[in-house]
Amino acid sequence: MARIVMKFGGTSVADLDRIRNVASRVKREVDAGNEVAVVVSAMSGVTNQLVAWCNGLSPLHDAREYDTVVATGEQVTIGLLAIALQAIGVEARSWQGWQVPIRTDNAHGKARIEAIEGAELIRRMQAGQVPVVAGFQGLGPDNRVTTLGRGGSDTSAVALAAALKADRCDIYTDVDGVYTTDPRIVAKARKLDKISYEEMLEMASLGAKVLQTRSVELAMKERVRVQVLSSFEDKPGTLIVDEDEIVEKAIVAGIAYSRDEAKVTIRRVPDRPGIAAAIFGPLAEKSIHVDMIVQDVSADGTTGLTFTVGKADLKRALASIEAAQKTIGYAELQSADNVAKISVIGVGMRSHAGVASRMFKALAEKGINIQVITTSEIKVSVLVDEAYTELAVRALHSAYELDAA
Amino acid sequence: MARIVMKFGGTSVADLDRIRNVASRVKREVDAGNEVAVVVSAMSGVTNQLVAWCNGLSPLHDAREYDTVVATGEQVTIGLLAIALQAIGVEARSWQGWQVPIRTDNAHGKARIEAIEGAELIRRMQAGQVPVVAGFQGLGPDNRVTTLGRGGSDTSAVALAAALKADRCDIYTDVDGVYTTDPRIVAKARKLDKISYEEMLEMASLGAKVLQTRSVELAMKERVRVQVLSSFEDKPGTLIVDEDEIVEKAIVAGIAYSRDEAKVTIRRVPDRPGIAAAIFGPLAEKSIHVDMIVQDVSADGTTGLTFTVGKADLKRALASIEAAQKTIGYAELQSADNVAKISVIGVGMRSHAGVASRMFKALAEKGINIQVITTSEIKVSVLVDEAYTELAVRALHSAYELDAA
Repeated sequence: MARIVMKFGGTSVADLDRIRNVASRVKREVDAGNEVAVVVSAMSGVTNQLVAWCNGLSPLHDAREYDTVVATGEQVTIGLLAIALQAIGVEARSWQGWQVPIRTDNAHGKARIEAIEGAELIRRMQAGQVPVVAGFQGLGPDNRVTTLGRGGSDTSAVALAAALKADRCDIYTDVDGVYTTDPRIVAKARKLDKISYEEMLEMASLGAKVLQTRSVELAMKERVRVQVLSSFEDKPGTLIVDEDEIVEKAIVAGIAYSRDEAKVTIRRVPDRPGIAAAIFGPLAEKSIHVDMIVQDVSADGTTGLTFTVGKADLKRALASIEAAQKTIGYAELQSADNVAKISVIGVGMRSHAGVASRMFKALAEKGINIQVITTSEIKVSVLVDEAYTELAVRALHSAYELDAA
Repeated sequence: MARIVMKFGGTSVADLDRIRNVASRVKREVDAGNEVAVVVSAMSGVTNQLVAWCNGLSPLHDAREYDTVVATGEQVTIGLLAIALQAIGVEARSWQGWQVPIRTDNAHGKARIEAIEGAELIRRMQAGQVPVVAGFQGLGPDNRVTTLGRGGSDTSAVALAAALKADRCDIYTDVDGVYTTDPRIVAKARKLDKISYEEMLEMASLGAKVLQTRSVELAMKERVRVQVLSSFEDKPGTLIVDEDEIVEKAIVAGIAYSRDEAKVTIRRVPDRPGIAAAIFGPLAEKSIHVDMIVQDVSADGTTGLTFTVGKADLKRALASIEAAQKTIGYAELQSADNVAKISVIGVGMRSHAGVASRMFKALAEKGINIQVITTSEIKVSVLVDEAYTELAVRALHSAYELDAA
């Protein structure tokens, strides 16, 4: 017997048939003797419609009213799923965020969960009832409904699992787990049985979009064992767990890529203190996120700087730097948006040398030029010409022996 | 300066343009110096969709979950209207039933309002804020969302007006007021400036479906002055007020009709005590509502009984009586569903004789046979062949001098 939180996303509850399918999955866990709580998202498409209505009335709408409107999506799903569960003999009841309550801060539209009062839900689960809890929403200190931002239901599920002291948080989605890389690019990509929180964070933020990043951070902090699995197929998914639970650590767990980056190069900048601040300060003020940063070795009193920003932010970033030309005093500004970032990720590299050099060798063998390199404790990332994205991912997937047999 | 509750139904908030239209109507009242609270229904069509989903999963669904689902319709509208009001410079905020709170009993799906805590809303109105309150919903003693039954938003508005001690409750709808009769039948039907609660109750329950009956009962009990007016046109509607406020009482305020009735006749029933109970007891147990009842004068120890039920209930009513044939001991059972009930209504008939006879004379002049007659203090109703409905209504409208000049 285990205590499990099951979370189902929008595509898993998109219509009545799929809601019935979810209900039968929940029943199976209940019949197996488990204590189960369920977290659901809005039926797919519903939230977009609600957001469009708010924007249609006023692009600069009151976030508190926005939350009142969009939180209805999950409210509909919890009621419908409770009805579907009761219809097949599973005792169930719906819980809105304010009823649990799931207390959040006051940041309407992107609130953070602060506390979940789990005692009543635990009592009911022990008595055989399945709580069906609305994801994505909570109750703010102003006694109004808050929402957590898009994808927030994953975070709701992990936070609930922590509050209920659940043995596992199963996130049902439209993929069946976390892969060594994107299976659309590498046919031999393998589904991982286990991955560590740290690796998952790098995989997620680097483009393998399976779970909301914040939910993984929370799982890591609260030590919640998370499983990602398919709501349409019937097989185990990928467990996201503490590094210590992974006995056989692969040196590299996976290869991630991102085509969302653009490269900015500033040449012949006076090599003196305060230059980096003069460049990146104004970008931060404009909420432009800077990812990779590399500075050339100084020569003849000047240096060069290369960094990446999101493709969508490139124009604003360039305008910001041009506006500060006098302060920075650079000679040349270049940019390119035909770049891709390729990363190899694995906690095993902490204890293994030669991970980076194997990467550079594999790329060199395919004649792929490396434009920028950055490293962290558990990943190495390179920027390459976007046209080589698939080639690079495939080469690295083979080089680290990740290909399925 | 007055304190006004404005209520807008589903067709008045059916899309973003109409919500903007509602916002500008509210702004006009605010600009005129009034304190305003608004009650809204779900966007038209939304509630039907939500109900269909519940029924699709289980025809015998948990009413508490049904309430959770269908209450979202109004929740969407309050948020959107608050946004629309803010966009044109009106300070506004949305209130769900549980936030006010609007306390109801525990009868999920058809709950009754028990108390509304109005102090906080009054404080905000006095400070210039417009509360936008979800109609149709409340908070049950189990801390769950309740709904009031279809059309319940009218009742929400009247109850809120009572709690806020409002000077008036304006119900905006797709008709521009209460007419002396159905304008689709009588082109010369006149809009009434004022009608008493009692008359309105008879008009509403007899088929002039403008307001939910319960809302009129509540308005009468709480002495809330209600105005029915169009949300699409810009002119005064009909005031529903205490009889004493109506100085020039017409003898007859209006003519109502209903085609929803069916007639049942039981012939040659033994004329002894307990027969009526043997007939109507089983009908009541089956929740079959009986309207007009007439008993013949006894002859040769037997009597005859005629009564009407809703057309939809006719088959069940006949089956019930047939099942009790032995107990009742009747000789003959007949029924007809091609009947219509025509009623003349007016508080003036309390002090005027001859109202009924004028009715009978007018119908006789058109050759319309009267099948059943019932009377109350402020109305006279007759059952006639359905084919004569329009003719009868027109004849009576002229006979009581209700035709517009």
